[in-house]
Amino acid sequence: MTERIDHTLRGRWTSTAGTLPPHALTWLRERIGLGDVRTPGRAPAVPESALDDAARAALADVVGPGFVRVDRDSRLGRAGGLSYLDLLRQRGDGELAVPDAVVLPASPEQVTDVLKACVEHDVAVVPFGGGTSVVGGVTALRGDKAAVIALDLNRLDKLVSVDPESRLAVLQAGLPAPEAERLLAAHGLTTGHVPQSYERATIGGFAATRSAGQASSGYGRFEDMVEGVRLATPVGEWRLGGAPASAAGPDLRHLVVGSEGAFGVITEVTLRVRPRPRVERYEGFVVDGWARGTALVRRLAQDGVLADVTRLSDVDETAVSLALSGGWKTAALKAYLRARGVRQPCLLILGWHGADTAAVGRKRAATLRGHRVVSLGTVLGEAWRHGRFNGPRQRDALMEVGVCVETLETATHWSRLTELRTAVRDALVDALGECVVMCHVSHAYETGASLYFTVLAARDAADPIGQWQVAKAAAGEAITGLGTISHHHAVGTDHAPYLEAEVGALGLDVLASVKRTLDPTGVLNPGKLLPGGLASPGDR
Amino acid sequence: MTERIDHTLRGRWTSTAGTLPPHALTWLRERIGLGDVRTPGRAPAVPESALDDAARAALADVVGPGFVRVDRDSRLGRAGGLSYLDLLRQRGDGELAVPDAVVLPASPEQVTDVLKACVEHDVAVVPFGGGTSVVGGVTALRGDKAAVIALDLNRLDKLVSVDPESRLAVLQAGLPAPEAERLLAAHGLTTGHVPQSYERATIGGFAATRSAGQASSGYGRFEDMVEGVRLATPVGEWRLGGAPASAAGPDLRHLVVGSEGAFGVITEVTLRVRPRPRVERYEGFVVDGWARGTALVRRLAQDGVLADVTRLSDVDETAVSLALSGGWKTAALKAYLRARGVRQPCLLILGWHGADTAAVGRKRAATLRGHRVVSLGTVLGEAWRHGRFNGPRQRDALMEVGVCVETLETATHWSRLTELRTAVRDALVDALGECVVMCHVSHAYETGASLYFTVLAARDAADPIGQWQVAKAAAGEAITGLGTISHHHAVGTDHAPYLEAEVGALGLDVLASVKRTLDPTGVLNPGKLLPGGLASPGDR
Repeated sequence: MTERIDHTLRGRWTSTAGTLPPHALTWLRERIGLGDVRTPGRAPAVPESALDDAARAALADVVGPGFVRVDRDSRLGRAGGLSYLDLLRQRGDGELAVPDAVVLPASPEQVTDVLKACVEHDVAVVPFGGGTSVVGGVTALRGDKAAVIALDLNRLDKLVSVDPESRLAVLQAGLPAPEAERLLAAHGLTTGHVPQSYERATIGGFAATRSAGQASSGYGRFEDMVEGVRLATPVGEWRLGGAPASAAGPDLRHLVVGSEGAFGVITEVTLRVRPRPRVERYEGFVVDGWARGTALVRRLAQDGVLADVTRLSDVDETAVSLALSGGWKTAALKAYLRARGVRQPCLLILGWHGADTAAVGRKRAATLRGHRVVSLGTVLGEAWRHGRFNGPRQRDALMEVGVCVETLETATHWSRLTELRTAVRDALVDALGECVVMCHVSHAYETGASLYFTVLAARDAADPIGQWQVAKAAAGEAITGLGTISHHHAVGTDHAPYLEAEVGALGLDVLASVKRTLDPTGVLNPGKLLPGGLASPGDR
Repeated sequence: MTERIDHTLRGRWTSTAGTLPPHALTWLRERIGLGDVRTPGRAPAVPESALDDAARAALADVVGPGFVRVDRDSRLGRAGGLSYLDLLRQRGDGELAVPDAVVLPASPEQVTDVLKACVEHDVAVVPFGGGTSVVGGVTALRGDKAAVIALDLNRLDKLVSVDPESRLAVLQAGLPAPEAERLLAAHGLTTGHVPQSYERATIGGFAATRSAGQASSGYGRFEDMVEGVRLATPVGEWRLGGAPASAAGPDLRHLVVGSEGAFGVITEVTLRVRPRPRVERYEGFVVDGWARGTALVRRLAQDGVLADVTRLSDVDETAVSLALSGGWKTAALKAYLRARGVRQPCLLILGWHGADTAAVGRKRAATLRGHRVVSLGTVLGEAWRHGRFNGPRQRDALMEVGVCVETLETATHWSRLTELRTAVRDALVDALGECVVMCHVSHAYETGASLYFTVLAARDAADPIGQWQVAKAAAGEAITGLGTISHHHAVGTDHAPYLEAEVGALGLDVLASVKRTLDPTGVLNPGKLLPGGLASPGDR
């Protein structure tokens, strides 16, 4: 049985939100000039549902009356994702877009029928899985439609089939990752996909957003695992996949993966799966400086010996991690590192998975062969593993004490990586003033790597939303031309203004033409991915 | 300087076509009832050029008068590709589609301008690189246009730039593979892409057709190497790429790769490249039977220890290889294998590339660890490497003596691989009667593998084209539903009838919508990929 996600607990990652230790608060006061203001937030306004009776009846005909919900908690629970701006809006800042109803289909066929009913009744559809989008991907925008529903896929929660010989599994889109892993574990299998959103995010959401997990160096990005997809669209169902590789025209699966609910609703995904590792080893290392650290990670990627988890923090992130970590006396550590010639410590977390200790040992030896790094042992590695999904909880706690806290990420080729890091960092500091900007490489490839930034500043109580929008725009401008606007967070509403610079006007035209084919009336996820919706080339 | 391909030598792979040794002819007479008829072929008819003066002048304005060619040899040299049916037509069987002119632009900008001129003058465009398509991908069809040109990309032959730190190289589309490798070798780099068409095929063609090379297990498919593309279209230029990975919407590069000239003309490709291996080792092994052989290759793929080249022949292909090989006395070999418990020999060629002997030794040990295979040493491996590009020459020689000889390929998941092999084999035998059908796995993945078939039969002198069309259709029907219609040969004209079964009616609608956006008047490569061309969903 699936543990259903309780979406009425918006804005809180779990029932027990994180708390900040006193020394963290002290540190924040020093570093970002945080005042002593608690900002508890207000309950957001929830307008009347605009879904008319005919639409509601048609939807109830498809899914049953109990699965068309218009109560306040259900609607508020699907009002947007989990970006900093979303959470501000949930706390009563700015305007919160609340869906007019929540519809919960039980099968791929019901999803197709819901879409047909929505076309007929002029209702916009926001596909909703774990609701963990941090780019506005599940904001309940209605576009030019009369109403908007959140199409909650939580009941599509089955492991449909497993082909152990081919290492393939068919999973329904609404399966939360932990439940998908529990079902696969019964067959000795795993996806290996563990993004920070793991505890809540769903299989369909991973595919729709081109997610990348913390172990992507070992298991690949989610798109690398997608062997087949089943997509419900307003014009019918589209199924793709059936071979490990093909030259039968363009690979159309790549149009569905990353389509963010704008082309259809992913209802099932056929995934390449792997044997569940019986042994995992995480270890902390320190490298002297960003340049040496990135050169090392580059060598590992280009030599094909990356650890399954490979994560390199810059000097700032390392300093914060060590300062806030209870397990290390900072002064002693500094002396230890200085004795080993490390002046600018950059923390490197490496994790290896394998069938047994020997296999993990072989992989570790292959990674480290010929490289000079200072090991801090497995304590720091295990601490990282233990806290790997805690980011959102920490953010909840930071927001409670008045911090402007958000992350953003990009990727580029190795030869531009440091230029990109500097450009984004400078843009954020320029925009926010007194702030902390931390960065790490979390995903490495032969040709380049991702950069993941975490920003902390004292919240501007007068205009908290404007404060972050200015900073985010500055970062987006800095990224444009140097890297991608998103490495694994997707486009949503927040990155839509930057997509044309990345894929060209022709790229937007192509996307719009695909949308017109699959979603001719534009009911699907208005305002996401394609800022212009169904607009033709000539219209823009 | 580039060695330009001489396309006037159609139908002959090089100036010295292969010859068959006497024992091969004896064997063919026994096995496929080949008569003693030489079939020298006739010169094909070449109609007058239909390109009108205005169109010719407009094209000459773009590329210069010397690069718009209407002479017989130039046109005949670009009349179709190198499939068995193409070669029959070149020999005077059936109707040969000859382009009205050959146009040779010198830059990406000129390609865009040529396309504009073609739109204005109602001229269809067939992009032409090495002309090695075996699926009708470069057949000079004019569709509903007044004339058709072959757009020969041979002059786009530059290595534009190299980024050694990011292991990226920008190459122009018309570079033949050997020349691309020569230019990259000056930087110590290689693509590692060596399909059988290597000696003539071009970088742009590899991208347009989703090519896969013989070392794909080590270097990946060509599409895995494509980091960026530059596409000339009738509505302007489209450039994509700039990061090693992204979540900025669907990966649109995958719409360009595999688009077979129907969406635009690829003019430049940014490729992930690798250090040139200093040591290569090829070794022949024998496995007892197809089931054990495929199980072994599957284990290697799923354990991540495939050799860079991995190629498993079935019992029939192995028998033919050994019978026709001069290096082995068949009786002695049989005794040798029988003594080692091998009753149904299946030849396994493995090849490893590396920086030095030690690195290659480590890779070899990782591949073979824990597996029971009979090594035949490096002689057979080196013989395979030496003859790896000889297939087309052997085919020329076989055609000379009246053999119907062709290859076809597919791919599927491991759990269906043997079923697919049997189905295709049975279909070919049913259709052709007395024939030899050989098969090998040439590309293996975690979830499945490719199957590559070679067919030999006595040519039906009365209707050689009909004979193969019937057999090919039978194979296509057998593949449909079990695997992909092409693993690395693409769609062209020959596989277009099977594409709907593979990607769905919606898949064709999506492709058509993309084509309408990029090629609104349908000048680009009519009849390829999309049988319906620009047709709207409602028209079909």
